[in-house]
Amino acid sequence: MTKKLMMIPGPTPVDQSILNALAKDTVSHLDPEFVKILKETLEDLKTVVMTENGQPFVIPGTGTLGMEVAIVNSLKKGDRLLVISHGFFGDRFVEIAQCYGIEVEVLASEWGKIVEPEEIARKLKEKKFDVITLSHVDTSTGVCAPLKEVGEILKQFPETIFIVDGVCATGGIEERMDDWGIDILFTGNQKAFGVPPGLTNAVFSEKALERRNSLGKISAFYMDVNRWMPVMRNPAGEYFSTHAINMVYALNQGIKLMLAEGLEERFKKYKRFALAFQSGLKELGFNMLAAEEIRANTVSTILYPAGIEDLPFREKLYENGVLVSAGKGVLAGKIFRLGHMGNISENEVVATLSIIEKTLSDINYDFRWGAGTGAAEKVLFAK
Amino acid sequence: MTKKLMMIPGPTPVDQSILNALAKDTVSHLDPEFVKILKETLEDLKTVVMTENGQPFVIPGTGTLGMEVAIVNSLKKGDRLLVISHGFFGDRFVEIAQCYGIEVEVLASEWGKIVEPEEIARKLKEKKFDVITLSHVDTSTGVCAPLKEVGEILKQFPETIFIVDGVCATGGIEERMDDWGIDILFTGNQKAFGVPPGLTNAVFSEKALERRNSLGKISAFYMDVNRWMPVMRNPAGEYFSTHAINMVYALNQGIKLMLAEGLEERFKKYKRFALAFQSGLKELGFNMLAAEEIRANTVSTILYPAGIEDLPFREKLYENGVLVSAGKGVLAGKIFRLGHMGNISENEVVATLSIIEKTLSDINYDFRWGAGTGAAEKVLFAK
Repeated sequence: MTKKLMMIPGPTPVDQSILNALAKDTVSHLDPEFVKILKETLEDLKTVVMTENGQPFVIPGTGTLGMEVAIVNSLKKGDRLLVISHGFFGDRFVEIAQCYGIEVEVLASEWGKIVEPEEIARKLKEKKFDVITLSHVDTSTGVCAPLKEVGEILKQFPETIFIVDGVCATGGIEERMDDWGIDILFTGNQKAFGVPPGLTNAVFSEKALERRNSLGKISAFYMDVNRWMPVMRNPAGEYFSTHAINMVYALNQGIKLMLAEGLEERFKKYKRFALAFQSGLKELGFNMLAAEEIRANTVSTILYPAGIEDLPFREKLYENGVLVSAGKGVLAGKIFRLGHMGNISENEVVATLSIIEKTLSDINYDFRWGAGTGAAEKVLFAK
Repeated sequence: MTKKLMMIPGPTPVDQSILNALAKDTVSHLDPEFVKILKETLEDLKTVVMTENGQPFVIPGTGTLGMEVAIVNSLKKGDRLLVISHGFFGDRFVEIAQCYGIEVEVLASEWGKIVEPEEIARKLKEKKFDVITLSHVDTSTGVCAPLKEVGEILKQFPETIFIVDGVCATGGIEERMDDWGIDILFTGNQKAFGVPPGLTNAVFSEKALERRNSLGKISAFYMDVNRWMPVMRNPAGEYFSTHAINMVYALNQGIKLMLAEGLEERFKKYKRFALAFQSGLKELGFNMLAAEEIRANTVSTILYPAGIEDLPFREKLYENGVLVSAGKGVLAGKIFRLGHMGNISENEVVATLSIIEKTLSDINYDFRWGAGTGAAEKVLFAK
């Protein structure tokens, strides 16, 4: 049986070496070998997000846990939060903040567009915010936020904590935590890392840790980074709550693969894959939801041309061997979402396009065989 | 190299079939095969805790997350909680509740003893409590709470929610959720289940879910069971936050092993292992911290006889091939903790005792070779 190609924006395909690491014997959280692996993983995480003095945390949970960890450690009831929302996951910050009585304001873009940096600057000048959140890539809309520019703007507002949701970006798109003034950056395993889901990986800047301390007692126990801090700094001697031992093995191996390939190489590769998909799909009559300059390199959101219906198309595509995701919210039925991150190669890009062509043929859509794959090949291979 | 015997109260040794399940290909959270496995796991979890109508939740996290999930879904600021504490993890409920401004009272036993059911009954008559928590086995002291009796008492207080921390018990010691009137029962993977750590497994009774609803909006997002409910009831059609796919595979296989063996058989087996260890260790000059009638079947807390020093003993024992845990808090240096749950057999019991004998010999402690193993064998094998 041919394995289905899992071209969704997470979980992404997991390399066999990561699965092998995952299946190593479970040991004590105090086992010297595990302690070594955890320490190494925490250091490697800093390398991935390009920070010198950030404090990494690896906590059993999901990306959503990461969002809430960021919120509860930087805001208390009545504090002011500015959410920049580019879709479903941006909006989720609002819901989380409302659980804690935080004063939230939202700058939301139309889905598929971004909030312009100037608008953010204007808002920040108008009013003081304790924290601002920005999703680097909102998985629901496939737009990529101008992280660096927003970071630049925020340098004029040093009292504001800059939270970045890196779930659909970290390890796939450049994130220079220190240079860009990011205070809290969190991500999951199952997107650009290509590791099975189950861990929240977060890095806090020194400023973010000071902010946490200034809050005193917070309405959180498991999510309180101050409770995890001792064990993250000294895994051999401290205990807070049992590490997800095997998941840490897997994360360690996942980051090893990333660093062995080289971060810059990896970022460029995903960019190339994104362009190859876009080029191929365009030849087949599809359009991209997001304008070129804000398209994510990790996930594409693809508008159907007239004559293709969402559900029958995705069902046939799945039957033919490729899994993609449906549109969310207002985009349901109008787009499909295609992940191109994690441990995939040129082969999956071309194979996916060929299966899309097969599917178009099955539904009697008019196209030229090889138009999609050919265009992608030019991007991927032409000298 | 001989593998170290991991005889700690969690993580416990993981069966190869569970590691194999863990290492299966990561798929989408909507993949029909995964959906089937998750549904099955949720049903099996109900079987393990013997409930008909309880609502199971499998959430990425740890046992501590489970404690907090139980608290935030049953109590709001100003509500009244009675914590029955038999050690470190009982006390942790107090810390968690204090994060949320909950009014907490504690009935705490001396470490190694229990709070008598009559005392609990007296307290409940004295004052109305919204919730009571009880750790079935407190991993720090190895005492087993009289769950059934406390449940019986609570039948006179139907307005009080009964939370049971099953982290060091569920699947290893009988827990009849419905019969004993338990409202929220949660556990981890890495103790009696013998599965790698990384999931919080909780079951809520109908009364507990009503209680959650009566609270309205709560100060929690990720931990709000109402947000997880749709996806737990309909994994194929709903989304809240990405499941820890591979961890669910492993949990599924872990519970399969338990149910294939039979719960009653398993409970009896651990009882036999506990008695074998106690008998063997007694012959070697050790005493148990907990009185016989309150000793847990999953973990033993063992007092050192005069002449044996904690750290050198445990270090030598580890060097010889057996890992045990140190005493916590006031018991540090006075006891060691020995786990005997999860996927272990008679072989590990006898081997552990033999390595303890070897270690006693190494430190020139006076004993008779075979005294420990012989006594254990009588419990395990004698007709």
